[in-house]
Amino acid sequence: MRSLLLLTAAALLIGAAPVKKLLAPNDIVAQAPASAWKAIPADDLMVIDLKNGGRVVVQLAPGYAPVHVGNIKALARTGYWNGATVYRVQDDYVAQWGLNDSDKPWPAGVVAKPPAEYVRPLKGLKITPLGSPDPYAPAAGFADGWPVAYSAKEGWANLAHCYASVGVGRDLTPDTGTGGELYAVIGHGPRQLDRNITLVGRVVDGIDRLSTLPRGTEALGFYKDKAQYVPIASIRIASDMPAGERPSYEYMDTDSATFAQYLHLRANRHDDFYIRPAGGVDLCNVQVPVRKTP
Amino acid sequence: MRSLLLLTAAALLIGAAPVKKLLAPNDIVAQAPASAWKAIPADDLMVIDLKNGGRVVVQLAPGYAPVHVGNIKALARTGYWNGATVYRVQDDYVAQWGLNDSDKPWPAGVVAKPPAEYVRPLKGLKITPLGSPDPYAPAAGFADGWPVAYSAKEGWANLAHCYASVGVGRDLTPDTGTGGELYAVIGHGPRQLDRNITLVGRVVDGIDRLSTLPRGTEALGFYKDKAQYVPIASIRIASDMPAGERPSYEYMDTDSATFAQYLHLRANRHDDFYIRPAGGVDLCNVQVPVRKTP
Repeated sequence: MRSLLLLTAAALLIGAAPVKKLLAPNDIVAQAPASAWKAIPADDLMVIDLKNGGRVVVQLAPGYAPVHVGNIKALARTGYWNGATVYRVQDDYVAQWGLNDSDKPWPAGVVAKPPAEYVRPLKGLKITPLGSPDPYAPAAGFADGWPVAYSAKEGWANLAHCYASVGVGRDLTPDTGTGGELYAVIGHGPRQLDRNITLVGRVVDGIDRLSTLPRGTEALGFYKDKAQYVPIASIRIASDMPAGERPSYEYMDTDSATFAQYLHLRANRHDDFYIRPAGGVDLCNVQVPVRKTP
Repeated sequence: MRSLLLLTAAALLIGAAPVKKLLAPNDIVAQAPASAWKAIPADDLMVIDLKNGGRVVVQLAPGYAPVHVGNIKALARTGYWNGATVYRVQDDYVAQWGLNDSDKPWPAGVVAKPPAEYVRPLKGLKITPLGSPDPYAPAAGFADGWPVAYSAKEGWANLAHCYASVGVGRDLTPDTGTGGELYAVIGHGPRQLDRNITLVGRVVDGIDRLSTLPRGTEALGFYKDKAQYVPIASIRIASDMPAGERPSYEYMDTDSATFAQYLHLRANRHDDFYIRPAGGVDLCNVQVPVRKTP
């Protein structure tokens, strides 16, 4: 057997005496008590159904970008995105969707020039520190399920650009984007975008529907021909869907003892496959567990 | 225009007076003098041609894993990989290829039990420091075109697991893998694998051929049915190909003034799109420039 990372069972059978299995982060997730999970409100779930099949579910973050998230809900509820497509996929960077160069007017309820919601006040957040240095900010950690960077001295916090993060496309400043064009990260977390662009959430299910799309061959990964655009059948907020059809998710409470254990193991892998625990971890390598509501 | 990152031209036209364009990292690459580039030896290029079209080119790193790289060259040269496939694709992690559970004997020239080549001596490397903290090692930087982590005190250096890094699949320790099963990173750099597994190089062209493959639905991203395996037509070392057919690449000399400028801008984006330069950067967000030999 020459496959990578096929382990667990074998380790339990070494020697005659029972061997204590060292826990991996996934074991912590599997054993987490119900109290370690928090429901994502249906009003914060954006459900994107692709025309050729496949669903992408985004958890919105109104605590960080209330105006942009408000816009996104208004755009979804007014059918603004009828005819939307994924029109840009840049390898190791982002997949982007919306109406692209449309001049369709903003519907009622959309703030056409939102403020820059690049940071929010640190006050009001209960932060679990990462415990490792962060190159992009004075400190990093987790707050109510989100990976954040922050400055205690200056009193701000920002959502971090990690794999599957969702942000708002914009032009040059002072434009902050409206929310009509959104992107999801499909590569190494481009943290240099932190505090330079508005993040509004993260993909919690179906990121592979975006990450497997063909890369665009034009500059910045735009598709060359409109025929390559990937059509989107609908973009809805889960709370607007019939109760029986709504998807439902929960995330691990980053203020729980369970998450503290998970974070510790992410920074100190000592399960069977590992030889040298790193003793540290970067923010985007601590993926906050999310699952379908059991 | 509501697209993300469509800029440059507009910025040059603001106001009546000519505006000095602030450089982006890509400008440094575009303007780099010939002296800033170093050729990759044809003997260090592994050329993987997929049966359904598409080529993946890997730069091997004999300076870090000489025995494993020697094995890989022997495997390529003896036709060991006839019938090889990509059989595992795990989202935000790795794509893996080889013969999977084959019991084909190792050909002559292959060391069946290589040593653990997880680190190499720091001595002999000329390092350009990253200049930002690294959570996974005492320090990080670049040596002869490679992203590395290192300990000056303990005298070791290791290749870092970044997007497109290529490593050797293995079973539980003390197995270090032979080189018959290889993986490429297709997600956020899984740096926790540093010093726990042998890295042998990086994909320098065609990573999107792997990153766009459908994700496997079995545990760890293995494909459920062999019918899903992605067949590989051939795996060759470029120096074995007819001279006229050989692909040829060069990488930016990480010891050059040009790279120093590129690195500085990667950590301090101040071009038109950016508002707040981070003042720091993580190792895997400084992609060492590689290009086809002009």
